[in-house]
Amino acid sequence: MASSKEEGTMMVLDSMEWVLSAYVEGGLPTSDHLKLQKNRLTVSVDSIPDRHVLIQLLWLSVDPYPRTRMTGHLDGLYFPPFPLNQVVTGYGVGRVIRSKDSRYKEGDIVQNPFNPVAEYSVVPTDLIWKVDPESRVPLPDYLNALGVPGFTAWLGIEMIGKPKPGENVFVSAAAGGVGTFAGQLAKLKGCRVVGSTGSDEKVKILKEEFGYDDAFNYNKETDFDAALTKYFPSGIDIYFDNVGGKMLEAVLNHVNSRARIPVCGMISQYNQRLSEREGIRNLLNMVGKEVRMEGFLVASYLNHFGEFANEMENYMKQGKINSKHKIYYGIQNFLESFTSIFSSSSSNVGKVIIQVSKDA
Amino acid sequence: MASSKEEGTMMVLDSMEWVLSAYVEGGLPTSDHLKLQKNRLTVSVDSIPDRHVLIQLLWLSVDPYPRTRMTGHLDGLYFPPFPLNQVVTGYGVGRVIRSKDSRYKEGDIVQNPFNPVAEYSVVPTDLIWKVDPESRVPLPDYLNALGVPGFTAWLGIEMIGKPKPGENVFVSAAAGGVGTFAGQLAKLKGCRVVGSTGSDEKVKILKEEFGYDDAFNYNKETDFDAALTKYFPSGIDIYFDNVGGKMLEAVLNHVNSRARIPVCGMISQYNQRLSEREGIRNLLNMVGKEVRMEGFLVASYLNHFGEFANEMENYMKQGKINSKHKIYYGIQNFLESFTSIFSSSSSNVGKVIIQVSKDA
Repeated sequence: MASSKEEGTMMVLDSMEWVLSAYVEGGLPTSDHLKLQKNRLTVSVDSIPDRHVLIQLLWLSVDPYPRTRMTGHLDGLYFPPFPLNQVVTGYGVGRVIRSKDSRYKEGDIVQNPFNPVAEYSVVPTDLIWKVDPESRVPLPDYLNALGVPGFTAWLGIEMIGKPKPGENVFVSAAAGGVGTFAGQLAKLKGCRVVGSTGSDEKVKILKEEFGYDDAFNYNKETDFDAALTKYFPSGIDIYFDNVGGKMLEAVLNHVNSRARIPVCGMISQYNQRLSEREGIRNLLNMVGKEVRMEGFLVASYLNHFGEFANEMENYMKQGKINSKHKIYYGIQNFLESFTSIFSSSSSNVGKVIIQVSKDA
Repeated sequence: MASSKEEGTMMVLDSMEWVLSAYVEGGLPTSDHLKLQKNRLTVSVDSIPDRHVLIQLLWLSVDPYPRTRMTGHLDGLYFPPFPLNQVVTGYGVGRVIRSKDSRYKEGDIVQNPFNPVAEYSVVPTDLIWKVDPESRVPLPDYLNALGVPGFTAWLGIEMIGKPKPGENVFVSAAAGGVGTFAGQLAKLKGCRVVGSTGSDEKVKILKEEFGYDDAFNYNKETDFDAALTKYFPSGIDIYFDNVGGKMLEAVLNHVNSRARIPVCGMISQYNQRLSEREGIRNLLNMVGKEVRMEGFLVASYLNHFGEFANEMENYMKQGKINSKHKIYYGIQNFLESFTSIFSSSSSNVGKVIIQVSKDA
């Protein structure tokens, strides 16, 4: 894997990295689109531009949204397409190896939302920030409960959903990185929570390990309308939408008056061409039930991050939040781990992350 | 048409009324579905139940939403279907002829949101309210600027849209009862306002009489995406959605960050079977642009009616609001007037109402 050699002030680093070599119009990316390449970096301090650092990637978050950057045109999330023949990016935690920014020194651990999916890379310091060296939080938690998945769940449930005790909350992709927290946070607010997920095994885990009142396997209960009638005899007050498509349409037949639908993503649609995407035909229900549907981006709520982190850390210290991640080892597994998050039958529960370096 | 004869304390009233004799699955109702019938009412004070009044209908509001009550199943607006072989209802202003409620006396003018579409009818007093006899407002205004259309526009623009000066506002069905006010209210808040409507004549009227900055004929500019690119070079901040369907999908390609979409109805979809309704495939844009879409019903905001009425009356006194209605004369024209509001090529501008009685 990675190797480095100091030669005077010069480092020679062999870095494995993932390059997008062709856009993926529909379906999942394959090795035709994403290619693992070895890149030999020759780095001296002088060769690093000012306000840049050389980072060794330790942990990489495997998220669904970059799929929307692989289609070659601007998609609904409005992140620009990845340039072809360049290294793709993801949310990472890394270690500073060399610094050309006085705010960062060698050995600092930093988070970077747009880190190249590469063992080593030189990145601008504009978008990175330091992990508190006094923190006792295990690093993977920064990619999970205390990172984007936890914050996303918190924003959707607390800032947009505004749950009241006794309300009925439905979470799709409930066993995913965001869904596991969304359900637990809603439970902590006194709601009844039901989730949908892709296997019986995950249904069991949601109920036994994440406190879901109930859950169903959407690959088995394929009549979503019937399933929601069964699991929500009193209707749905909050739908935390991770998937869009047919499930959203079904939910709109079961919403209660003044229901809220925070939307953080629509994973069921990312692999579809726009023309093949499932249109929602019953938005009229939003009028009769006075539904509020609201999309949100984590980046817009960073001023609430402290409030979130306090609350979440307290819950964790009190043992009120269960946090799971599935770890893939080695950056060579990026493609496999990435496609796994779109597979309803994968065994993933919670956040999928890659331990990129053995030193992590 | 209507005739009445007093016979002692007994009145015999010949009342023309509209009965729904068959449900309309798709398309517009015809005389196969809605039948004009003559009903002879024999009414004595004793025959009126307590807390009921006998009303002579003077003015009837012709609204799109009752179409959703003619399909025979619960539709997205959640008003129950009209029972077959019964008189349909609409928003009316009428005169009390006989009263069995001490709060109402003969001659009182009342508003009734669910008045039978009948020249005379006995109605419960639960849902009616009195028009202030001191008011100098012409009665048709209670069905227009100072009634449901004006209030609907005000709620969508002010309560849900929350416009800021300089924002770009798009109103569909802009020449309709609600649209004419929505555009004017947004202009009064300092916004740039563009509307879509069904004829060149109405485009002209929107710009010349209702202060729209621009408007387009969607029957001519049928590539909605291209039209919105042209009319909204800086994107859309508020979309007042009256129509749903393809126009909503196009709008979602042109929304700015944090755009608001108040939805008061989706008239383009009312005549479609659910399976034929136009699905919205790009709701994912709501995430990337953090769009808030919110349905609303006038009935839920009655506590704001006073605030609205003050503001609207002030605007009217200052000549800042132009209010138009198209009047059909005689209840026999209900079917024609009702179908006209779904026709983009009709000459209707503003609210469509029927003057039911010559005494109005």
